Amino acid sequence: MIPSPYLLYLGHSADFIGIKTSRGLATFRRDDCVGEFRHDDCPLTLDLPRLSMADAAARGAKTMVLGIANGGGTMGADLVADAVAALEAGMNVASGLHQRLRDVPRLADLARERGLQLFDVRDPPAHLPVGTGNPRPGNRLLTVGTDCSVGKMYATIALAEGLRARGLAADFRATGQTGILIAGAGVPVDAVIADFISGAIEQLAPARSDHGWDVIEGQGSLFHPSFAGVSTGLLHGAQAQALVLCHEPGRAHMRGIPGRALPGLRETIDMNLQVAKLTSPDVRFVGVCLNTSRLEAQAAADLCGRTADELGLPCTDPLRMGVDGILDHLA
Amino acid sequence: MIPSPYLLYLGHSADFIGIKTSRGLATFRRDDCVGEFRHDDCPLTLDLPRLSMADAAARGAKTMVLGIANGGGTMGADLVADAVAALEAGMNVASGLHQRLRDVPRLADLARERGLQLFDVRDPPAHLPVGTGNPRPGNRLLTVGTDCSVGKMYATIALAEGLRARGLAADFRATGQTGILIAGAGVPVDAVIADFISGAIEQLAPARSDHGWDVIEGQGSLFHPSFAGVSTGLLHGAQAQALVLCHEPGRAHMRGIPGRALPGLRETIDMNLQVAKLTSPDVRFVGVCLNTSRLEAQAAADLCGRTADELGLPCTDPLRMGVDGILDHLA
Repeated sequence: MIPSPYLLYLGHSADFIGIKTSRGLATFRRDDCVGEFRHDDCPLTLDLPRLSMADAAARGAKTMVLGIANGGGTMGADLVADAVAALEAGMNVASGLHQRLRDVPRLADLARERGLQLFDVRDPPAHLPVGTGNPRPGNRLLTVGTDCSVGKMYATIALAEGLRARGLAADFRATGQTGILIAGAGVPVDAVIADFISGAIEQLAPARSDHGWDVIEGQGSLFHPSFAGVSTGLLHGAQAQALVLCHEPGRAHMRGIPGRALPGLRETIDMNLQVAKLTSPDVRFVGVCLNTSRLEAQAAADLCGRTADELGLPCTDPLRMGVDGILDHLA
Repeated sequence: MIPSPYLLYLGHSADFIGIKTSRGLATFRRDDCVGEFRHDDCPLTLDLPRLSMADAAARGAKTMVLGIANGGGTMGADLVADAVAALEAGMNVASGLHQRLRDVPRLADLARERGLQLFDVRDPPAHLPVGTGNPRPGNRLLTVGTDCSVGKMYATIALAEGLRARGLAADFRATGQTGILIAGAGVPVDAVIADFISGAIEQLAPARSDHGWDVIEGQGSLFHPSFAGVSTGLLHGAQAQALVLCHEPGRAHMRGIPGRALPGLRETIDMNLQVAKLTSPDVRFVGVCLNTSRLEAQAAADLCGRTADELGLPCTDPLRMGVDGILDHLA
């Protein structure tokens, strides 16, 4: 496991979505976070103490988490320099980027010299199986989205917690860097070899017979031209009986693709059902989760109400309004 | 490039589809093949001289090609032993399996000692871009299938050759181990990191303005629960104006998944159009290629005729009847 407590990295980021991994840890593992590191040009904050590398180490931070996400997942010179600074201050470094910390010779050498560790969270497990799509016992719920970064992980965690609060066995199955850091386990499905996408998810959420639920974090979108292959394999591997649609109202375009409009909610539901049926013929949607963080409370409530009416499904913002409506519908 | 001539490996295989890489080289690069290597329990032949490793080396073979394909792409002890024997006989070894030759210490050590080379054809290129789906100029045709191993590569090569025979510029864009060995270039799309599937294809078939065609080899099937993620990303990355459906009549079940029926041709057409439209709104099917190798000539001709009538598209077996009907329809 990655030694805590953590210093969360924001760096030079001015993109609230781009710091989603740091944000996820600040939300769900706040007791394990001593502070945030950001440069003067970073206008964002997680409402944690702003610390230098040295101050963080002095306050006991064991690991600096490079909790940012970017398309392609490579490290620029600025990130490498800050990782060097963290190691020199005596902290381990964890990253969820595609490019591995250990593949940067300067970081690998420095970590070895100092007796510190580099954690590459996006390393997929070795020896993944090829998926089969064969029926397996167990209850599985998967979140799917209109786009990347619309709140699927938050919704998934809330649904797993909600099931447990009702006395059911339920496991959050993380599929992305943030979820894996929060849960301490999972598979970075967008980093596996393409032939093994569905197989990785079949392994992550295997057959179970305790009447409990695997609540699986979705990734990307069937409508995202960069990542729909990942979403497709995830949908097939999950073999979910229950899907929950996630969406962020008001987004101007698909994440990273200016000019490309988001799909409609009904369109997203229909396409996901069509693809999911290949391995789960009786799959159905059980609810909709909207990320309404940019809306006032009343506007958010109104939008959830209208959406529920339009789609005939319970609709909520899991952070603001909980997920009881969806869990009732699921039961 | 991989030094020729080649010794083609059949090993212990009793599965005609499982030797498809050796078979592809025997078909399309026959002048570069000195013989085939098979154990006594292998009932298959490519109608090349059956040679021992030593005899092949004596006849000038420079590289033994481990031209077999299996689900998961790992090497058993038998394959490793035969690769050792090839190196000891003085030949390089090439493989298209997921597991790398160079990752087997015994092979890596032996190749170094003997001054021979190991070629891992399924190594994806480094620094792949993330796909965007943004419109790019150029004419692109992609083959898609009801299943894996139904003849997509043969059809793709025949279509590229047919276009060139009509005086057009046309490039076969290989996406699998066999095609890459035949063409000497390409991207093994099922071996790239999942986030980069569509990006790898955008790079393989980039914008072109010479009025020529990129004729792209499809992989897997949207209906294959193991590999549909690869097929989806390939379809999005190809941004093809023209699709050709490939199918092998009479197949009992989806490749590697006993009990799972193949989709219908119309169903396969509809699903591929729906997915492809995300990045190519005006995409259309221009023909159907059937692999009729198990049928008598008259039965094959009749089936192509019936299929053409049913689907309203030219239908052919590219090896038996050529692809003129499809190219006429395309023009």
